[in-house]
Amino acid sequence: MQICQITGFKNSGKTTLMSQLIRYFSEEGLKVGSLKHHGHGGEPDMAEGTDSEKHFKSGSVISGVQGGGLTQLTLHRPFEIEELIQFYGRFKLDLLLVEGYKQADYPKIVLIKNKAELSLLQEVSNIIAVVTCDVHLENPGYPAFDMNDLHNDITALAGHIRRDSND
Amino acid sequence: MQICQITGFKNSGKTTLMSQLIRYFSEEGLKVGSLKHHGHGGEPDMAEGTDSEKHFKSGSVISGVQGGGLTQLTLHRPFEIEELIQFYGRFKLDLLLVEGYKQADYPKIVLIKNKAELSLLQEVSNIIAVVTCDVHLENPGYPAFDMNDLHNDITALAGHIRRDSND
Repeated sequence: MQICQITGFKNSGKTTLMSQLIRYFSEEGLKVGSLKHHGHGGEPDMAEGTDSEKHFKSGSVISGVQGGGLTQLTLHRPFEIEELIQFYGRFKLDLLLVEGYKQADYPKIVLIKNKAELSLLQEVSNIIAVVTCDVHLENPGYPAFDMNDLHNDITALAGHIRRDSND
Repeated sequence: MQICQITGFKNSGKTTLMSQLIRYFSEEGLKVGSLKHHGHGGEPDMAEGTDSEKHFKSGSVISGVQGGGLTQLTLHRPFEIEELIQFYGRFKLDLLLVEGYKQADYPKIVLIKNKAELSLLQEVSNIIAVVTCDVHLENPGYPAFDMNDLHNDITALAGHIRRDSND
């Protein structure tokens, strides 16, 4: 299972890029998994009035709901990324795209929205590409892609991910 | 990990009883997990506009979101109950309460709303108690509890579960 992280500061376009990449690779026939760290956003939203929410509010430490080919598990505890990746590994995925978890050491795409965010390039390891938005970087030191081009054609970045972060 | 199933026809009060039992045992200090089969209700609801939903719609076969001590995993595939129980087993639970999965063979509470539903007692295995609602059963063949009493005091049923379905 190949792993690639999408990292960037808040509102740098991580979620949009994740969705674009998941869609692109899935349409290419790859079996894709995704994992997001909510960062400072707190707990993930739960659909109100659902059984998961009811069980959870009643005190369940793990609640699972299965139906129609979909299985949802809600776990009242955090996990180390390695533990989650081990779990994902059971599903014979081709690619796992990870949003956040800046401190992890998997191959990374770094999103840079403006020059003030360039510090991120010093903070994270294993960078394979930089994606910029409305800013031109001279000699960024890594293969660079323009977010505005990605909206039109994500092929180049996707190909780069498959080549440079393959296991 | 002790396992107990709550089974019954549609609208027999399974979800309410699950919540009551989860709350009771959790308040008693037990580490409780819960699992529900959605039956004919189709897929479990997803909170709209969440990252899980976005990833899922983009084609992700597994999407995970972690934040604030909560981890949500959404898997685009069904599981056998045994496979899920194996996963739950990793979390050192005291008790797993299971709603649905009538064909499984774990100790069961059967909910009977009216006499027409008595057939269920022939359909499932490993019955440890019957919970009735607005119907009086003569010689049900199993320890019987009245749903209306449970709303006031769930202690007797909870004690029975701990005694009769313990591993």
